[in-house]
Amino acid sequence: MFLRNQWYCAALSHEVKAEPLGRIFLNEPVVMYRRVDGGLVALEDRCCHRRAPLSKGKVEGDRLRCGYHGFLYDASGSVVWVPGQDKVPPDARVRSYPVCEKNGFVWIWMGAKSLADPAKAPAFTWNDDPAWASWTDYLPIKANYLYVVDNLMDLSHVPFLHIKTIGSADDTEPTLKWERGPDWSRGTRAAYNLAPPLRWKMEGINHNIDQMKVMTFTPPANVLIDILTTDSGRKPGQTPLLEQRLIVLDSMTPETETSCHYFFGNCRNYKIDSMELTAMLHEQTVIAFNEDKDMLEAEQRIIDLDPTASQIDVMGDTGGLQSRRIVDRLLAEESGTRAAAE
Amino acid sequence: MFLRNQWYCAALSHEVKAEPLGRIFLNEPVVMYRRVDGGLVALEDRCCHRRAPLSKGKVEGDRLRCGYHGFLYDASGSVVWVPGQDKVPPDARVRSYPVCEKNGFVWIWMGAKSLADPAKAPAFTWNDDPAWASWTDYLPIKANYLYVVDNLMDLSHVPFLHIKTIGSADDTEPTLKWERGPDWSRGTRAAYNLAPPLRWKMEGINHNIDQMKVMTFTPPANVLIDILTTDSGRKPGQTPLLEQRLIVLDSMTPETETSCHYFFGNCRNYKIDSMELTAMLHEQTVIAFNEDKDMLEAEQRIIDLDPTASQIDVMGDTGGLQSRRIVDRLLAEESGTRAAAE
Amino acid sequence: MFLRNQWYCAALSHEVKAEPLGRIFLNEPVVMYRRVDGGLVALEDRCCHRRAPLSKGKVEGDRLRCGYHGFLYDASGSVVWVPGQDKVPPDARVRSYPVCEKNGFVWIWMGAKSLADPAKAPAFTWNDDPAWASWTDYLPIKANYLYVVDNLMDLSHVPFLHIKTIGSADDTEPTLKWERGPDWSRGTRAAYNLAPPLRWKMEGINHNIDQMKVMTFTPPANVLIDILTTDSGRKPGQTPLLEQRLIVLDSMTPETETSCHYFFGNCRNYKIDSMELTAMLHEQTVIAFNEDKDMLEAEQRIIDLDPTASQIDVMGDTGGLQSRRIVDRLLAEESGTRAAAE
Repeated sequence: MFLRNQWYCAALSHEVKAEPLGRIFLNEPVVMYRRVDGGLVALEDRCCHRRAPLSKGKVEGDRLRCGYHGFLYDASGSVVWVPGQDKVPPDARVRSYPVCEKNGFVWIWMGAKSLADPAKAPAFTWNDDPAWASWTDYLPIKANYLYVVDNLMDLSHVPFLHIKTIGSADDTEPTLKWERGPDWSRGTRAAYNLAPPLRWKMEGINHNIDQMKVMTFTPPANVLIDILTTDSGRKPGQTPLLEQRLIVLDSMTPETETSCHYFFGNCRNYKIDSMELTAMLHEQTVIAFNEDKDMLEAEQRIIDLDPTASQIDVMGDTGGLQSRRIVDRLLAEESGTRAAAE
Repeated sequence: MFLRNQWYCAALSHEVKAEPLGRIFLNEPVVMYRRVDGGLVALEDRCCHRRAPLSKGKVEGDRLRCGYHGFLYDASGSVVWVPGQDKVPPDARVRSYPVCEKNGFVWIWMGAKSLADPAKAPAFTWNDDPAWASWTDYLPIKANYLYVVDNLMDLSHVPFLHIKTIGSADDTEPTLKWERGPDWSRGTRAAYNLAPPLRWKMEGINHNIDQMKVMTFTPPANVLIDILTTDSGRKPGQTPLLEQRLIVLDSMTPETETSCHYFFGNCRNYKIDSMELTAMLHEQTVIAFNEDKDMLEAEQRIIDLDPTASQIDVMGDTGGLQSRRIVDRLLAEESGTRAAAE
Repeated sequence: MFLRNQWYCAALSHEVKAEPLGRIFLNEPVVMYRRVDGGLVALEDRCCHRRAPLSKGKVEGDRLRCGYHGFLYDASGSVVWVPGQDKVPPDARVRSYPVCEKNGFVWIWMGAKSLADPAKAPAFTWNDDPAWASWTDYLPIKANYLYVVDNLMDLSHVPFLHIKTIGSADDTEPTLKWERGPDWSRGTRAAYNLAPPLRWKMEGINHNIDQMKVMTFTPPANVLIDILTTDSGRKPGQTPLLEQRLIVLDSMTPETETSCHYFFGNCRNYKIDSMELTAMLHEQTVIAFNEDKDMLEAEQRIIDLDPTASQIDVMGDTGGLQSRRIVDRLLAEESGTRAAAE
């Protein structure tokens, strides 16, 4: 079903506070909160007593108290107080999940704890690099998480789905290059002499642009899109009018088979002090990503109507297919590991 | 499940324009639009690429472009352009459905194309006959389409369900006659000396009326109701105060097993120039048919609660039962044809 | 699944009038109404003709007329009139259910009629005893009815879930006593020297209180909670400042496996003429019970996510577990009776 021995994005750092935040990952209910020292805790969001969600409770120092009967959990998921008796039953605990926090993103490990190595969690370093200006946001999407991977690895949808925001109608004849390694997949999409999309016009750019987009997938479901925008037709040696680098951060986490959490952001290395520009980029991107959400949810509904209906692949799908093959191979490996262990 | 080799009503003519209209028929998603010459196109509403609904795209001349990645379909359902490559894969197409348009109604053939003969599509000729005044409308109903057939073939519900609109409390002792042929079923319902229903009072008719209603079912799910209203107690040779003929057009198309599309209209041969009368008839009928919708959806919910619960039939159900027997016989014939072909 | 040979609460007396009230009990649709003489009728809420809910019809004297085709039912569930014919088919009837009314509550018997003895229906006598002041109310809850039993038999949730209404933060170290008989289960919960909960402060009580709560379960799902509140630290022989007895009436009836009807009320033996106090107690209790509803529905959603997840029991669950054992034993007995009868 889902890869388990992976770091999945669980939240944006600013979402997790000293109050419980409940989310479902891989069909499992999880509650997260922040300890007094700022450290993160992620526990099973299901009281071991009567299965109420702990996310309806409250944080007391480093501990989480169930809002129903007051069972008190320490940060490891062990119950330290139950009502009406002095002794706590020895099996009174919930599962805890390894979590780590890097560059403004919170990562959770839903698999075997012994395999969790925070050093291997993704590092979206640009997001808290003072040389870059950034924002992040979150959207729940009622569609399988891999449809979002397909979407991001095949940017041929931009001139159509996003024609009112970030797409240029000219952008239909890019040059495409695909690469892959055992645990990554990459597409490079170069387009030249494009009329500026509306969003670029809002930055004051009214001349044609060239765009180089490098989309890199890493499992379980991260896609970084590194976009270099330059002015078109620049001659060798000429001073550039425009040279913008924008990195789109995308991380998707399955909620169920037909829904997911979509975490995303932008990091740019120009005009980094302009809060107005940050606000505009944030707003326009959220509009565009809601266009994706709307389309992906419609796609999911059509697939639900007849999951057996076939589909065809074209060249533009290479990146998405490479990415899915990595997921499939890792799923088979995990399944083999479990089989060997049994 | 559903008859396939039949003309089903897909839309009212005025609903289909040079922009896509998506509907589900017989559990299949269908998108319809109008070509430059006004001709109709009906295609599978599921892009062959990533299964997005084409109804979220846009019509470009005679072609339909997917709103996701821009796949361009001609009116036959073949893809003529894909992003990122010159050649179109040979299997890049969606199913197209035969459609035809008659008298303001659009008909679709969900079965074997070779059997589709537009000459056999229903002709609701009164709807565009200049000697008649007409209106049409549409309601989606969350109930099996045959419950609507039952409803229309058994008008004993009118004095109860529609007592606030088109029903007369007196109308509970009609004479009934039932006839049938291999592919039609008919009921004739005569009622005399009825106090005028509220809707007739709104026409200014305050004296008692006689009503002859002839309900004719033809498969898959059309019911025409020809209503002759005359003044009661007229003597032979006396000049009629009232002689109104009103034909109610009804066509139901399954969406799923528990929902359907309901297309309907009225055609009358009197006061045909009165737009006020047309508007009043339209408004009052929509109120009445929403009473049907509300009851049929409640019936469906009760049936869903226990689909095995029994029901009994009375004389008034003869027309509905005859109609269902025709559908059952045709289903068996279609099943036999498919079995023989395999 | 559900006990059938039991009196279940169907409504509060004031809810049933000379117009139909439809509810689902034990997955079966039931319609209730009041006859001219005030007597109660409960019938299957599914017309025997086309399975429309009779609750969309209307009461005519002692009879109920279907709102669809006008089938007229007498109070025994037999059809006495059908449209379009003189004779009523002999099998035209719906099931009728024994009902009885006691002390402002309506009880229904969903099992074998021959076993229904109204004398055995619960008697919530305080509710219409002039020496007591009372109110009653109703909440639908999207959770299994036994979760509400668990809730009421384990009042350790009060200081947590209801801290803003009827709970005292001090109330976490009660003395508990559990008793049981073949067909009842009882808990006695004594707590001393509690800071007054907000609801008691609204009564003007600002000193510490002692509370003795006796929770008594009887099948299928009734819980009476008899609460004695006295002032703390009273010396022998001293005149009491406070001595309040409040009986909480609770009766739960399954709607489906994951939803139920919750009927409840308060009866008190002090300040019985104060309508302001009645109104305040009613309002605050409804606020508190909506806190229960919210938590129980969240618990049901978490359980639905993985019904196999385990849970642990603590001492406070003794009453709920004893109650469930009674239900389980009676279910086995009913199953045995049916098996023997077959």
